Amino acid sequence: MAKYTIGIDFGTLSGRAVLVNVNTGEEVASSVFDYPHAVMDTHLPDGTKLGQDWALQHPQDYLDVLYNTIPDVLKQSGISADDVIGVGTDFTACTVMPVKADSTPICFIEGYENHPHAYVKLWKHHAAQDLANQLNDTAHAMGEKWIDRYGGKISSEWEVPKVWQVYKEDREVYDFMDFWVEAADWIVWRLTGVQTRNACTAGYKAMWHKREGYPSEKFYAALDKGLEHLIQDKCSCPPSPLGMCAGYITEEMAQKTGLKAGTAVCVGNVDAHVCVPAVKITGPAKMLAIMGTSTCHMLMGTEEKSVPGICGVVEDGILPGLFGYEAGQSCVGDHFAWFIDNCLPADYYEEAKKQGKNIHAYLREKAQKQKPGESGLVALDWWNGNRSVLVDVDLTGLMLGMTLQTKPEDMYRALIEATAYGTRRIIQSFEENGVPVDEFYASGGISQKDPMTMQIYADVIKKPVKIAGSAQGPALGSAIFAAVAATSKNGGYDTVEQAAEVMGKLKDVVYMPIEENSRIYDKLYEEYCILHDYFGKGANDVMKRLKNIKKSVTESK
Amino acid sequence: MAKYTIGIDFGTLSGRAVLVNVNTGEEVASSVFDYPHAVMDTHLPDGTKLGQDWALQHPQDYLDVLYNTIPDVLKQSGISADDVIGVGTDFTACTVMPVKADSTPICFIEGYENHPHAYVKLWKHHAAQDLANQLNDTAHAMGEKWIDRYGGKISSEWEVPKVWQVYKEDREVYDFMDFWVEAADWIVWRLTGVQTRNACTAGYKAMWHKREGYPSEKFYAALDKGLEHLIQDKCSCPPSPLGMCAGYITEEMAQKTGLKAGTAVCVGNVDAHVCVPAVKITGPAKMLAIMGTSTCHMLMGTEEKSVPGICGVVEDGILPGLFGYEAGQSCVGDHFAWFIDNCLPADYYEEAKKQGKNIHAYLREKAQKQKPGESGLVALDWWNGNRSVLVDVDLTGLMLGMTLQTKPEDMYRALIEATAYGTRRIIQSFEENGVPVDEFYASGGISQKDPMTMQIYADVIKKPVKIAGSAQGPALGSAIFAAVAATSKNGGYDTVEQAAEVMGKLKDVVYMPIEENSRIYDKLYEEYCILHDYFGKGANDVMKRLKNIKKSVTESK
Repeated sequence: MAKYTIGIDFGTLSGRAVLVNVNTGEEVASSVFDYPHAVMDTHLPDGTKLGQDWALQHPQDYLDVLYNTIPDVLKQSGISADDVIGVGTDFTACTVMPVKADSTPICFIEGYENHPHAYVKLWKHHAAQDLANQLNDTAHAMGEKWIDRYGGKISSEWEVPKVWQVYKEDREVYDFMDFWVEAADWIVWRLTGVQTRNACTAGYKAMWHKREGYPSEKFYAALDKGLEHLIQDKCSCPPSPLGMCAGYITEEMAQKTGLKAGTAVCVGNVDAHVCVPAVKITGPAKMLAIMGTSTCHMLMGTEEKSVPGICGVVEDGILPGLFGYEAGQSCVGDHFAWFIDNCLPADYYEEAKKQGKNIHAYLREKAQKQKPGESGLVALDWWNGNRSVLVDVDLTGLMLGMTLQTKPEDMYRALIEATAYGTRRIIQSFEENGVPVDEFYASGGISQKDPMTMQIYADVIKKPVKIAGSAQGPALGSAIFAAVAATSKNGGYDTVEQAAEVMGKLKDVVYMPIEENSRIYDKLYEEYCILHDYFGKGANDVMKRLKNIKKSVTESK
Repeated sequence: MAKYTIGIDFGTLSGRAVLVNVNTGEEVASSVFDYPHAVMDTHLPDGTKLGQDWALQHPQDYLDVLYNTIPDVLKQSGISADDVIGVGTDFTACTVMPVKADSTPICFIEGYENHPHAYVKLWKHHAAQDLANQLNDTAHAMGEKWIDRYGGKISSEWEVPKVWQVYKEDREVYDFMDFWVEAADWIVWRLTGVQTRNACTAGYKAMWHKREGYPSEKFYAALDKGLEHLIQDKCSCPPSPLGMCAGYITEEMAQKTGLKAGTAVCVGNVDAHVCVPAVKITGPAKMLAIMGTSTCHMLMGTEEKSVPGICGVVEDGILPGLFGYEAGQSCVGDHFAWFIDNCLPADYYEEAKKQGKNIHAYLREKAQKQKPGESGLVALDWWNGNRSVLVDVDLTGLMLGMTLQTKPEDMYRALIEATAYGTRRIIQSFEENGVPVDEFYASGGISQKDPMTMQIYADVIKKPVKIAGSAQGPALGSAIFAAVAATSKNGGYDTVEQAAEVMGKLKDVVYMPIEENSRIYDKLYEEYCILHDYFGKGANDVMKRLKNIKKSVTESK
């Protein structure tokens, strides 16, 4: 008798559940629920205004995902809840919220509906940048070693800058909350009634280390005397390894979702990290690039190395027993969309329309006819700053080599190539610092829809590019972890390796590097690196000076 | 009784005559005639194929301009030919042709119709680039001093590379021709029956110097033994100062044009140079920028100085008694047109159309709302190489500072600003080398149609920008020189200064630098110069390497 698990992926604007056959990996049914409150970045539901760079969410939306999508996939598939042996979840991160000791979000409590700090701070809430800068300065001034694990820089998106902002701006909420938790952990808490804390976000977003624990109280005190006991006061739940069973579906949740009470639920996880076993990666030296508007790079190694400019290295952070490395490019699909929106002439639109083609597909068709180097262009993929390896949000874009003969498809292709060079630069950084990258995998929208880009990546990085077999990478990954939480005793698996081997998927197609192209891309990559270092490492800080001029001009307007 | 002159401007695709009142400068009538053969760049009229980078014209077209436009302006205005006291002409340069001793073009002669080298080589005929390179190498190897007057480099567009190509590729035509003449001089020869050679093209395009003459026979012999006596054999006509009377309308021409036989005709001139008195410039340190698809800079000084990267310095080359300096930017209006054609999204077109606006005007309206520095962008205006001061056709474009918020109008404005920085860089080069630039004037299409660009120029160069009063600058300039050729005895003038004072025209509007803008542009210009020198002076030859890669890829395709 076949067994099933349900993986639920909580994204930025919606949640998606996928019901998967544990014995075959078949995705039997899927269901999406859009968050009714979406992203709140201008005002709260009651009209309370929000500041610049805020981005909040409403936790009720997450619950409504459960109440809508789980019954829907059960109904669609006709599978009995008796055969569903586990539930797994993954979330955007760092997406954090203040809650009471019984898991009630502060924003659910009467009298707090109009407190912006009572709500969920979404990963892209950027209003704590000043505090992040201050945190980084303090860490470097105090010679804190742990900051090296994060490429030397903590992001304003992470747990401590965000909670520090609450502390500074709304002491009432700060004092009233019992816990400062990741939404990833909160949803598991609500499903099971048991509080857990996943090792992944604790490690990547809260500076926790399996052997050394959190930074010292002395460090938090240096930020603000009142934060000295932050961990003990608000984040005391001990981290649990990924794939562990967090608890079981409660009676209440069973009623609301149609699942059986007692179904295993695994500890929370992160959308990018959970994709790794979904493409069958369970060992070191295999890089997964999750390519969408931006790209996230996942890689595991057998040792902990300091790699400058990566987002973080966490023991057991991706899979138990290995060191999980994360790096990123802050602008990938966003580049291509920007180009289409701002730089594409009317006659291209008209011709695409006439031919009944999607404009990206039409443009790719033209760009595809080119050989590497034929456009004479090279670009730096920094329209949204550089996440790895320069870790500098103040860098901006560059394109070079234009002539009066340059066509839109030339520039479009140059942008695609630039993101491939950026990926090669990240791989180079890992390899130079002792973390091997032998294989390369891609998942995410671009990997599924854009063969030209994937071929360019193969040619530029000079490695075969394997493609995720499922378009629902995160939800499938969560279903894999759910099967592990269920254990073999209940028809699941005892290790992520076993589950990934059966349930993980790759497409048959592999993009092989074409040597002739790679030879030319080697030369172009050399040019990219010269420009990368010249503009990115201080020889010419023109991009920052232009940003400063822009800032002073805009402010005086 | 009012007197009149006719100025005729021979452009790249058409000729234009303007009939001007000598006593008021009023442009009474004008007439345009399109060249029936336009530019021949693929084949001759009989189908004979042309090579790459060829650009020929048919001399019959020039005659047809005379036969059509002169009768037309006489008819339109109702002015009697008795009151037309002079005719002046200006031409593109270096536009050159082989002729017999009686002025008959070789291509008019039976048996030569299918010889490409028998036709006029238009200024933009670029098929002699290899020979120009060889000429430059030879001149430098021999330590020829005269090359410093041309910024160290002779262009493939000029007289000697072009005639050398004839010598190498069609010895029959070379041997058969009696003279190698500028079209500017040929048209005057046909009007008057007298051969003259204008000092302007002799100086700027044929390396002639008022005191030193042409380069030595030793130099020509070093190019090719057969060219040793090139000047004596094919270019022996002595140069005449500008504004001098070349001769008088012949009986035959009188019949064909409706002019009176005996009407004064001044020596030939060049379209850019002839514009100078048309904006009332008759003294040193006043720069005129003629702004169209590219920009030509005219400046006079009281001394001969070596200025690196200019196109040339010629004594009496613009006006008698002064040293005429020429510099240029190879891409100005072409930049803006490229941008509109290749980078402007459909919704901008639609909105412009909806508002009934020209797309350039619509885009300027948006760009105009910005303050300097607000876009965060800076560009290098090298989409068509750099003419001055780097004299390097292999440089290419650069734009820097793009973010996901960058809009089309930001990039459009950045391109305009880049051309203004390029102009400031040229001015700086003159000033650093002892040639003062105290005032700045603009003529050409952009100066007439684009107030935003002119204000940006004023702000960037930090000088008031005065604007030509006539949209027909070259034809008006030719009419001014015609009035000088006629002399005061016949109702004209004895000096260009006197004629320009009455007939030259400026608009009332002057664009004054806005100090607040200039302060910001000083900073942005500094960034431009850092990039200009980094990419233009050998620190990073990425643009050339990309061109080489492109070339090798394209050739192997």
